[in-house]
Amino acid sequence: MTTEDNDFSNGTAYVDGQIVPVSEAKISVLDWGFLHSDATYDVVHVWEGNFFRLDDHIDRFFNGMDKFHLSISYGKDEVKSILIDCVRKSKLRDAYVEIICTRGMPKPGSRDPRNCTNRFIAFAIPFVWIACPEKQAEGLSLVISDIQRISPLAVDPTIKNYHWLDLVMALFQAYDQGSETAVVVDGAGNIVEGPGFNFFVVKGNTIVTPDRGMLEGITRKTVIELVSANSHEMQQRPLAAEEARSADEVFITSTAGGIMPVTKIDGKKIGDGLPGPVTMKLRASYWKLHRNEAYRLAIDYGQ
Amino acid sequence: MTTEDNDFSNGTAYVDGQIVPVSEAKISVLDWGFLHSDATYDVVHVWEGNFFRLDDHIDRFFNGMDKFHLSISYGKDEVKSILIDCVRKSKLRDAYVEIICTRGMPKPGSRDPRNCTNRFIAFAIPFVWIACPEKQAEGLSLVISDIQRISPLAVDPTIKNYHWLDLVMALFQAYDQGSETAVVVDGAGNIVEGPGFNFFVVKGNTIVTPDRGMLEGITRKTVIELVSANSHEMQQRPLAAEEARSADEVFITSTAGGIMPVTKIDGKKIGDGLPGPVTMKLRASYWKLHRNEAYRLAIDYGQ
Repeated sequence: MTTEDNDFSNGTAYVDGQIVPVSEAKISVLDWGFLHSDATYDVVHVWEGNFFRLDDHIDRFFNGMDKFHLSISYGKDEVKSILIDCVRKSKLRDAYVEIICTRGMPKPGSRDPRNCTNRFIAFAIPFVWIACPEKQAEGLSLVISDIQRISPLAVDPTIKNYHWLDLVMALFQAYDQGSETAVVVDGAGNIVEGPGFNFFVVKGNTIVTPDRGMLEGITRKTVIELVSANSHEMQQRPLAAEEARSADEVFITSTAGGIMPVTKIDGKKIGDGLPGPVTMKLRASYWKLHRNEAYRLAIDYGQ
Repeated sequence: MTTEDNDFSNGTAYVDGQIVPVSEAKISVLDWGFLHSDATYDVVHVWEGNFFRLDDHIDRFFNGMDKFHLSISYGKDEVKSILIDCVRKSKLRDAYVEIICTRGMPKPGSRDPRNCTNRFIAFAIPFVWIACPEKQAEGLSLVISDIQRISPLAVDPTIKNYHWLDLVMALFQAYDQGSETAVVVDGAGNIVEGPGFNFFVVKGNTIVTPDRGMLEGITRKTVIELVSANSHEMQQRPLAAEEARSADEVFITSTAGGIMPVTKIDGKKIGDGLPGPVTMKLRASYWKLHRNEAYRLAIDYGQ
């Protein structure tokens, strides 16, 4: 197949040093990134032709590799160049861009992860929404699952990882109850996070988000910065399920969609059952921030 | 590439309905089996041209799929036929055979696992030893890590899954301490399991193995059955780290190697520091069982 035959419209991937259509991007079934979920990753988005907070994502990715004893032959600037190339070639103006480092394969017969050559993979696909803009207009329906998030005493949740079976099983619980998504809890029953998102509640003049047991999302960080610049008090601390049920407003945050209102928990309305004013104001500020030079990196699409 | 060009000597894989050399067996980077470790699997071994306890492994695999809301278009007999074909084509007399079901890919833009077509993959590679026979002659050196195994309240450990980062990080701790492998603990500090193996201690007339928080291995099951036929008392219950340190003998069990003696824990000798007589007797019985018609399925290699 020649480059001219390739269809990059569904996205591109960087695998084995080459950019290919994402449909052709594959990893060996013997890679421990698959067989032991022994990998770290990060997701950054491109909006209207600009990366958003790319350096923050790349810093977290490199930090995660260090902690998992993973390393790649590229420096941060090289990863940045690869991502720009992937998006440029995809022509996507709004994209979901994932960078991955897997353990790789041990030598035949060996089970020693130190013998593996770690692998770097990246891909850019059309922007993914946890909740599409139409759904955001009415707000999400969410359940508080009794499934516990994998404990930080087992796997460090601040290193972005693919251990999601707790989250996926919670999603199936949500569907069974007629809801769209779920959050899971810690051993004390406090809410920690959902599949790919952080969780926030608004009560009076206070905004609360969990401070432990979950990924420290870049969108979460952005919200914390935005709140500090607003009139609300930001609290990062354990968050009881009951506080969510009795909140004025609830929202979730993710690179896959930004700030998204939750209007029902366990089938019951939050407040008046409509996306709240604090949520919507933060959401507007979040998207406005995408035009701020300090947060964006423009992609030269060459046309 | 024609079939004649293929080199099956390193193993075979069944992917997309075809048997290919394992080096060519790949999955899409977009499969949730990779991106969310949303998969279950099982490993069965072939010894001297016979599968060992194949039905037990296939039963556990199908049970795991049910619990994870996964399904494949093959029945148990079809999976069995595929595995026989994989091993026959590989010509391997001693093989490590893995069967996998992944969630697959959601539709573009969707994050709903119900929209995925689940995928079936299998591969057969040369037999893998957690500890090679030479190493087994002296016994393994193991550390008791302070890392906790992922809790059953997060992910059901009786469904074989790829959430191994706790186990892999424990392996790195073991290497740092000059040992070869590690076990991880539960929230109460009791030993649960290691990377791919169950854990047993012998003290006087009693053999103890953990009863919760870990995979219920088929080799573990075989040992429990063998002990019952012996003069020892078998106890399945929580196992404190201190009981392991003061045991007469310690051994681990896995499809990847059978019954393997541990002679050092945290750098200190167990008993006299040599593989113990109960362990070695059980190991001999285990391998002898491989010639028992009730446990084996002979492969017709066609030559």
